[in-house]
Amino acid sequence: MAATIRDVAQASGVHVSTVSRTFSAPHLVNPETRNRVLAVAEDLGYRPNRAARALTTGRTHNLGLIVADISNPFFPPLIKAAQAHARTRDYHVFVADTDEDPQVEEELIKALAKQVDGVLLCSPRLSNRAIERLHADVPFVVVNREVKGMPTVLMDIGQGARLAIEHLAGLGHRRVALVSGPSGSWTSKRMREAAAAVDGVDLVFLGPNTPTEQGGLAAAAEVAASGATGVLAYNDLVAMGLIEGLHERGVQVPGDVSVVGVDDIVAGRLNRPKLTTVAMPTAAAGRMAVDLLLQSVAEGGTATLATLATGLVVRESTGPAPEPAAS
Amino acid sequence: MAATIRDVAQASGVHVSTVSRTFSAPHLVNPETRNRVLAVAEDLGYRPNRAARALTTGRTHNLGLIVADISNPFFPPLIKAAQAHARTRDYHVFVADTDEDPQVEEELIKALAKQVDGVLLCSPRLSNRAIERLHADVPFVVVNREVKGMPTVLMDIGQGARLAIEHLAGLGHRRVALVSGPSGSWTSKRMREAAAAVDGVDLVFLGPNTPTEQGGLAAAAEVAASGATGVLAYNDLVAMGLIEGLHERGVQVPGDVSVVGVDDIVAGRLNRPKLTTVAMPTAAAGRMAVDLLLQSVAEGGTATLATLATGLVVRESTGPAPEPAAS
Repeated sequence: MAATIRDVAQASGVHVSTVSRTFSAPHLVNPETRNRVLAVAEDLGYRPNRAARALTTGRTHNLGLIVADISNPFFPPLIKAAQAHARTRDYHVFVADTDEDPQVEEELIKALAKQVDGVLLCSPRLSNRAIERLHADVPFVVVNREVKGMPTVLMDIGQGARLAIEHLAGLGHRRVALVSGPSGSWTSKRMREAAAAVDGVDLVFLGPNTPTEQGGLAAAAEVAASGATGVLAYNDLVAMGLIEGLHERGVQVPGDVSVVGVDDIVAGRLNRPKLTTVAMPTAAAGRMAVDLLLQSVAEGGTATLATLATGLVVRESTGPAPEPAAS
Repeated sequence: MAATIRDVAQASGVHVSTVSRTFSAPHLVNPETRNRVLAVAEDLGYRPNRAARALTTGRTHNLGLIVADISNPFFPPLIKAAQAHARTRDYHVFVADTDEDPQVEEELIKALAKQVDGVLLCSPRLSNRAIERLHADVPFVVVNREVKGMPTVLMDIGQGARLAIEHLAGLGHRRVALVSGPSGSWTSKRMREAAAAVDGVDLVFLGPNTPTEQGGLAAAAEVAASGATGVLAYNDLVAMGLIEGLHERGVQVPGDVSVVGVDDIVAGRLNRPKLTTVAMPTAAAGRMAVDLLLQSVAEGGTATLATLATGLVVRESTGPAPEPAAS
């Protein structure tokens, strides 16, 4: 049977708490006592508990996962898949929410770095330079953003945006609004580039917008005034808020305006009309990110880039472009 | 200027990494070296970094927050409020999701206990006995469940359920279905007790149900067959799924059946019909839980019980009971 902390305490002639402190706060223990306890522990083959053991192996068997906004339903499937997958590798995942604030993000990375073996950075808002600097403290994998020289998991939003715009063009829409996300969003930039590459459609760019229902509601007036009959929204939340805002203005979806979201969150499937959307492989991305991160932890970072395919799910919020009014 | 790890290394004649190891893994350092480094560190007034400092104060300045299901929009406002409030007290919050699984919950509590000063347990699924046992490892505050002898923050769901049933009774509904949550749910039990205390209404209890849209969808057939014209659902997700399921069966809400949710999540305000719901003070509960937890951390646990009021928000998913069919 393995030696317990009690065995060490008894054999050293000290209290259990002194043994504990010898491993966790050695400078608080009298040097003679400390040396005796450590010698006895070695003789008995005593292994301190997991936290103390982590100090010897340098492994906590915890991973950190940082998200921009935990209330965005895009993230939970990613978080849950990452957690379930990490559990099969004997790792726990601790999640922290940056509230879309780069300063909070940096503080949380620093706080987590001390408690975990690696960090999954999902949709970070920090600059590439800041990410590279912080990477010295703890291995990263970046999800949903490209940072040079760092293991990265991307969902191919460019491909998804192209599918969405082609879908709208195929329904006869000639003027399409891109309702973008927060300023500096990597995803918005990719969507814009991909949309611009589709022929035969005039694009209107509206933004930046808060990436929530409120942001979509607030964008409704601008969309209605834009003359666009098709919309690709930054995400499903924005799309749902936008549909509600258009509805309040008497603009019918999809009768007057067709709306495509991005993410394929559950709420979009229950929305009326049910949302046409670009499905993002969030669960697969969460699992892939854990795999890349654990590789980094075990072998040191390699700049692997994994790009996962997206798809278009056509439901009820898109339809044929309305007949142009006689003029 | 404070002494740095480099100053200690130079004055001790060792590498920086040896100083670091002396504080983090003392048993890996030769006893003579270790004692010299610790003596020099004390002379120079060197303070190890935050993680190492935590070993001396016993404080990590991190809190854990455990939720049953991070994808339930009930939790994010609580998480965000707890995080923002903790930040004002110089604490970071790490979140973990138990996926409604008591065994995962226990593992996560044990993993977090080593890395944080205290844990907020939100809607735990563990037995009271297990919670009391784990409490020996780390201070807890329990939210949304009563555990004897432990600091607790409750949202008065009994009051909310009573308001909801009285609202339905006032609209002429005489037969009301309670679509409950998971088996063993403390909240379902409180709702049931409170609803039973309202006069003049026949109650039908339907459950247990998965506390999600899918659970609500699945309960639609049973509700339609129950003869109830009013429903109080376990939460807004269940209510929204139920409305969708009734709609698919040709049952109109609120024309044929009135539905009340619980939580007041954002999606309920955008739902069609907009959801009548019991508003839960989730943000206030998150802040209160942090306050009670930090008191526990600082002064040792006291069994404070804070109960926060709930309210009814009447929107579009409830209306007058339909005229009884002539018979």
